[in-house]
Amino acid sequence: MEKQTLLYEGKAKKIYSTEDQHTVWVEYKDSATAFNGEKKATIDGKGRLNNEITSLMFSMLEENNIPTHFISKQSPTEQIVQHVTIIPLEVVVRNVVAGTLAKRTGLPEGHVLHKPIVEFYFKNDDLGDPLFNHDHIEALELAAPKQLEDMRELALQVNTILTAFFTEKKVRLIDFKLEFGNNAKGELLVADEISPDTCRLWDSETNEKLDKDVFRRDLGSLTEAYEKILERLGGNLHV
Amino acid sequence: MEKQTLLYEGKAKKIYSTEDQHTVWVEYKDSATAFNGEKKATIDGKGRLNNEITSLMFSMLEENNIPTHFISKQSPTEQIVQHVTIIPLEVVVRNVVAGTLAKRTGLPEGHVLHKPIVEFYFKNDDLGDPLFNHDHIEALELAAPKQLEDMRELALQVNTILTAFFTEKKVRLIDFKLEFGNNAKGELLVADEISPDTCRLWDSETNEKLDKDVFRRDLGSLTEAYEKILERLGGNLHV
Ligand SMILES: Nc1ncnc2c1ncn2[C@@H]1O[C@H](COP(=O)(O)OP(=O)(O)O)[C@@H](O)[C@H]1O
Ligand SMILES: Nc1ncnc2c1ncn2[C@@H]1O[C@H](COP(=O)(O)OP(=O)(O)O)[C@@H](O)[C@H]1O
Ligand SMILES: [Mg+2]
Ligand SMILES: [Mg+2]
Repeated sequence: MEKQTLLYEGKAKKIYSTEDQHTVWVEYKDSATAFNGEKKATIDGKGRLNNEITSLMFSMLEENNIPTHFISKQSPTEQIVQHVTIIPLEVVVRNVVAGTLAKRTGLPEGHVLHKPIVEFYFKNDDLGDPLFNHDHIEALELAAPKQLEDMRELALQVNTILTAFFTEKKVRLIDFKLEFGNNAKGELLVADEISPDTCRLWDSETNEKLDKDVFRRDLGSLTEAYEKILERLGGNLHV
Repeated sequence: MEKQTLLYEGKAKKIYSTEDQHTVWVEYKDSATAFNGEKKATIDGKGRLNNEITSLMFSMLEENNIPTHFISKQSPTEQIVQHVTIIPLEVVVRNVVAGTLAKRTGLPEGHVLHKPIVEFYFKNDDLGDPLFNHDHIEALELAAPKQLEDMRELALQVNTILTAFFTEKKVRLIDFKLEFGNNAKGELLVADEISPDTCRLWDSETNEKLDKDVFRRDLGSLTEAYEKILERLGGNLHV
């Protein structure tokens, strides 16, 4: 497999073409951003940590029969994935109130939900990733009702699997964001990444934050937090 | 029927008890507010116009078999309605993009939707009336799923009736907000008001705004705009 031309550079990753049009090469960058790009930093080692963690998470989901874009880890900061057409929706699943859900509902951060809440945000930096309901999604033709139902169903399955997995590692899965895409065969796959950049993860005993909130809220060393997660997942701590 | 103690004073109306506990007395005030109360004014005659228009709208809906709280107009600025427990959701139906929908989606104001969009906002001034999806509504136990479906269905029926009605009067119904409540028998009723404060109404030929946007955006005389609506509805222009 060969890394060819840069197709897209996002805030956290670069996507390259390969000689196989159905496959892309993902490179995880050392950059951290928050608040729709308002807050930015370069953090040495972050790319490697997110690549390791995401690779572990996707392998584990595949073993649990969740269709994902993941093919293989290629290097400490790179992986090979199926090329998909990303559906421009960020699908958020929440088990515990935090972040914007606290602001939106007035419920206190830490409030445990009886049932997970699923939210769809329009993936659009210019508009600030606004919350959408089903009618907004239909009006903008972002996804058909059946596909939306499938995304919701898959997201809830991923939640069940991840929650069980993290609980064993003494980590609470507060919430997380998924992106979905369709491959050339039209299959719906979980794509993008699953890392402490895209999950809220609290230590089960102390509720210490082990995710991007450390960066958003200046709570200490981001890499130390992400290393704790990687360590608990049994991952490769040193290159 | 007698007006007794003031039960609640809102931004646009006062609600009084009567000798019948199932019935309340509504007084329409001459105040205009926008942007969650940030912009305020007293506008002579506004209360009367909204009382006249709302009374006409609710009578017309009742004739079309929509269950509403309306009983009778009592004076130029007052009406008698069934006492309901208001469900704290603002149900918005949109036929054409305007206002916050333009901001949320990036679609241009005036864009005609293929299908109406229904939105539920949490009626909570402190939180700025945030958009909610079904999961938020369930988590806060604001309405049961079945009741939500009924509200959506009724709101869409009201939209069909109002659109036909306004079209005849050479007015375009761009969007509107409804509130719902349950009476003592547990019946779901359309409550609150239906007026140019709660609808976007554009002249069919010129697209002149004949609603609260005249106040929000300083487009001229609010009472002249509301009088145009009342006149087209065949209402009482002078006390
Ligand atoms: N399998 C895939 N195929 C194509 N694009 C993908 C795939 N997985 C993720 N992407 C997209 O790669 C882009 C780069 O990722 P990222 O740097 O996180 O971007 P962003 O700044 O949009 O969050 C994103 O637009 C993401 O949706
Ligand atoms: N039939 C009814 N029974 C009880 N309350 C009602 C009824 N219709 C409307 N209300 C409520 O009366 C209050 C006063 O109205 P308004 O001045 O428009 O208030 P607000 O400032 O909340 O918009 C609102 O809370 C509204 O929901
Ligand atoms: Mg991203
Ligand atoms: Mg009101």
